[in-house]
Amino acid sequence: MVSTCSFTFFHDIFLSVFLPPFCSLPLALSSFLPLSQIIKCKAAIAWEANKPLSIEEVEVAPPKDHEVRIQIIATALCHSDAHILHPQFEGGVFPVILGHEAAGIVESIGPGVTNFKPGDKVIPLYAPQCGKCKFCLSPRTNFCGKLKHFKNPMGDQKLMEDGTSRFTCKGKPIYHFMGTSTFSQYTVVSDVNLAKLEDDANLERVCLLGCAFSTGYGAVINNAKVTPGSTCAIFGLGGVGLSAVMGCKASGASQIIVVDINSEKFTKAKALGATDCLNPKDLDKPIQEVIVEMTNGGVDFAFECVGGAKIMRAALDSVTVGWGVCTIIGVNVGDNGLNVSAMELLMGRTLTGTSFGGWKGVTSVPKLAADYKNKKLDLDALVTHTLPFDKVNEAFDLMYQGKRFKMLQTKPSNPTLD
Amino acid sequence: MVSTCSFTFFHDIFLSVFLPPFCSLPLALSSFLPLSQIIKCKAAIAWEANKPLSIEEVEVAPPKDHEVRIQIIATALCHSDAHILHPQFEGGVFPVILGHEAAGIVESIGPGVTNFKPGDKVIPLYAPQCGKCKFCLSPRTNFCGKLKHFKNPMGDQKLMEDGTSRFTCKGKPIYHFMGTSTFSQYTVVSDVNLAKLEDDANLERVCLLGCAFSTGYGAVINNAKVTPGSTCAIFGLGGVGLSAVMGCKASGASQIIVVDINSEKFTKAKALGATDCLNPKDLDKPIQEVIVEMTNGGVDFAFECVGGAKIMRAALDSVTVGWGVCTIIGVNVGDNGLNVSAMELLMGRTLTGTSFGGWKGVTSVPKLAADYKNKKLDLDALVTHTLPFDKVNEAFDLMYQGKRFKMLQTKPSNPTLD
Repeated sequence: MVSTCSFTFFHDIFLSVFLPPFCSLPLALSSFLPLSQIIKCKAAIAWEANKPLSIEEVEVAPPKDHEVRIQIIATALCHSDAHILHPQFEGGVFPVILGHEAAGIVESIGPGVTNFKPGDKVIPLYAPQCGKCKFCLSPRTNFCGKLKHFKNPMGDQKLMEDGTSRFTCKGKPIYHFMGTSTFSQYTVVSDVNLAKLEDDANLERVCLLGCAFSTGYGAVINNAKVTPGSTCAIFGLGGVGLSAVMGCKASGASQIIVVDINSEKFTKAKALGATDCLNPKDLDKPIQEVIVEMTNGGVDFAFECVGGAKIMRAALDSVTVGWGVCTIIGVNVGDNGLNVSAMELLMGRTLTGTSFGGWKGVTSVPKLAADYKNKKLDLDALVTHTLPFDKVNEAFDLMYQGKRFKMLQTKPSNPTLD
Repeated sequence: MVSTCSFTFFHDIFLSVFLPPFCSLPLALSSFLPLSQIIKCKAAIAWEANKPLSIEEVEVAPPKDHEVRIQIIATALCHSDAHILHPQFEGGVFPVILGHEAAGIVESIGPGVTNFKPGDKVIPLYAPQCGKCKFCLSPRTNFCGKLKHFKNPMGDQKLMEDGTSRFTCKGKPIYHFMGTSTFSQYTVVSDVNLAKLEDDANLERVCLLGCAFSTGYGAVINNAKVTPGSTCAIFGLGGVGLSAVMGCKASGASQIIVVDINSEKFTKAKALGATDCLNPKDLDKPIQEVIVEMTNGGVDFAFECVGGAKIMRAALDSVTVGWGVCTIIGVNVGDNGLNVSAMELLMGRTLTGTSFGGWKGVTSVPKLAADYKNKKLDLDALVTHTLPFDKVNEAFDLMYQGKRFKMLQTKPSNPTLD
C-alpha cells in the first residue's frame, strides 16, 4: 500500500488522540493499529434513478473516528436496494453505492475503535446499536437513536457521522447507503454498525444475517413472539418470507400458511415448515377470505413480507379478531399505505411492524452466526443464485423476476492501490 | 301483574324443560322462578335516524331461554348511542331502543338461567362473555364468539339469540341495541350479557362500569398495559378519556398529557392525575408536534378516545419510535379511517384497539364494582349531570355540546301492567 496525503492527515489525528506527541509506536500496538490509506477498488455505483448500476473504480478513504473499513467478501441484495433506484422513492440521493446485506473482513480501524481489529470477520449493520441511547438501553426495541430519519430509514445514513462520504469516484463524492454500502470491494462503516463474528464464520452464508434472515426470522421470534400451537400466514416467499417460515417452525406453530404468486417457491417453503401453500392466482376469491375459512376465523399471526397496501390489507384481514397480530415487514415505493378503520382494531387486532427483526444487531448477530455454525439455523436454504460481483445488474434482474432469493457474491482480487 | 297469553305460552315451555308434566311447583322453587308476563313501561324509542328519541309506552315480553328481564335503575349515554342515529351509520336499524351503559335489578329470568335471580343487582353488558368459546377460554381477549358482526359491533345484537325482539310499541317490533337497550324502564338481555353485583352496589354510580369507565380504564390497564414511569397522551376527555387518565395514574405513569378542545375539562383531568393539559385551539402547530417536543421524541402510550382519522393520526404520530403503542378506543361515523404507511410501523410502533377495555365483563365487572365500593376507583368524578329519564334528548344535546360526561338516570315508578 502506498501512503497518500489523506493517510498522513488521518494518521496525524490518530496520534493526537491516542499517543503522546512524538512517541514511537510500540510493536504490539503498531501491528494492531491500522496503517490506513486510500484504497482504490471496484464498486457498483448507482449514478441515477431507474438505471443499471455501473461497476467503477472508486477511492475508499481511511476510516475516521469510530469507523471501520471492511473488505467485503460476500454481499446479497434485496428489494430495499432496488427501492432507492425507483423514481418515486423519496429521499434517494445519487450517485450512491447500494448494498446492505454482506459480510467481510476488517481492513483497518479508525481512532476510538476498540471492539474491532484488522482481520476480524464482521457483518455490516444498517440498524446501528450505539449501546448508549435510551432505545439501546431498553430491551423493548432494536431501534437506536443514531437513526435520525426514522420515517425513511432507507434514506438515512447517507453520509458518515461527520457529514462526509468515504467514497469518491471520478473526483465526485459518492453517497453511502443505509450506513453500509456493501456493493463495493471495500466500504467504511461506523463501529456501531458492525457485528463481530467468530474467526471460523462462513462469510458467504452469514452475510444473509445482514438483512433477509434476521428480518424474517426475528419478526416471528422477537416482534410477534409466535406461540406454540398457533396459526400463521406469511405473505411473500422471498428471503424474508422464507426466514419467517423458519421462525414459525422454530416457534412451534401448528399451521404455517404461505402465500406467493410464484408456485415454484412452495417446494422450498414446505421443506422449511410451511403446511399450506396458496397462490392467489389459483383462487377464485380473495386470499384473506380463503385463509379466514381455512382457519375458522383467521390466523393468530400474519407476516407481510412483500410491501404495498394491497398485501397489507390481505394480511390484516387474515388475522383473527380477539388477538390477531399483523406484522408489517415489507415496504413498497410510491404506495399510499393501508387504510385502517377503528372498527377493524376495536375487536382486538394489532397492527405493528419491524425493522431488522427486532434484533439489536451488534449483540445478536454474532449469536445468530454461531447458531448457523451449530446447525440450529439453515441459511443454506436461502441461497439460489451465486453471481460474481460484476454481474450485479443480472442479480437485480433475477430479483425483479421474483426468482426466489438471490445472492450476489464478490470475491475481490487485490485492489488497486493509489 | 296480570298474566297474558304470552305469559302462558312462556310458562308452558318453561315447565316442559324443567319439571315433569303436571307436577305442582314446590314452594321454594316457585318463589325463585319468575312469574313472567308482558310488562308495559316507558322507553325512549328512536324511530328513525337523525331525529330526537320519543318516550313511548312499550311492551316488554318475558325473557326466553337464557334471558333475563331487568328493571333499569340508572343509565348513562355515550357517543355510541348517538352514532346509530347518524344518517351515515352503516347497519343501523329502526325503530330501536338505544342505551348500553346502565345498572338495574333482575325482574325475572327465563328458562336455563342459573346465575341470576329476581332481585339481583346487575349491569347489562354489550360485550358478552359466554365462557365457552375459544375466545372466552383464552386470557388474551375479551372478545366473545357470540358477537357475529364484529366488524360493526354497534350494529350487532339487534335481536335476541332466537332472532326476535322482546320489545313492541304500537304493535310494531322494536329492535334491540348492542344486546342491552337500556333506555327503557325494563329491558331483556341474554344471561351472557349480564354481570351480577353485590347487594349493596350503588347502581347510580356503577352503571358507568357498563361502558365509559371500563373502556377507558381497561384500555390502559388491560390492553396497553401502561408501565410505571411511562409517558402517556390521552386524546379526548369524555368519560372514556377521563377514565383512561385514572388508569394511567393507577399504573404509575410519570407524565399524563391530556388533549381536548374544551379547556373547561382540564380542572377535573388534573384532579384525576393529568400532568399536562393541551388545547389544540391554543397551539400554533399540530398537537402531535407539540407532544413529540414535550417528550423528547414521543410518548410511550397514546389513547385515542374521540374517534375519526384526524385524531387517530395525531395519536399515532405522538408515540415514540421503538416501542410506542397507540390504542384506538374512539369511533366516528362516516370516517374514512387512518392511512398508515409501512414505514410508520417499521420502527417499532404498534397500532391496536380495544372494546370494553379488554375486560371479560361477566367476571370482571363485579370486581370493578367492588373496587368502587372499596374506594379504589373514583366513578363519582365522572358524573356531571343527572337528568330524569324523560329528558333523554336534553342529555343527547349536552353530549353533542361536549360538556364532559353526562349521566341520565331513570328511576321508574311502577310500570303499567297489561
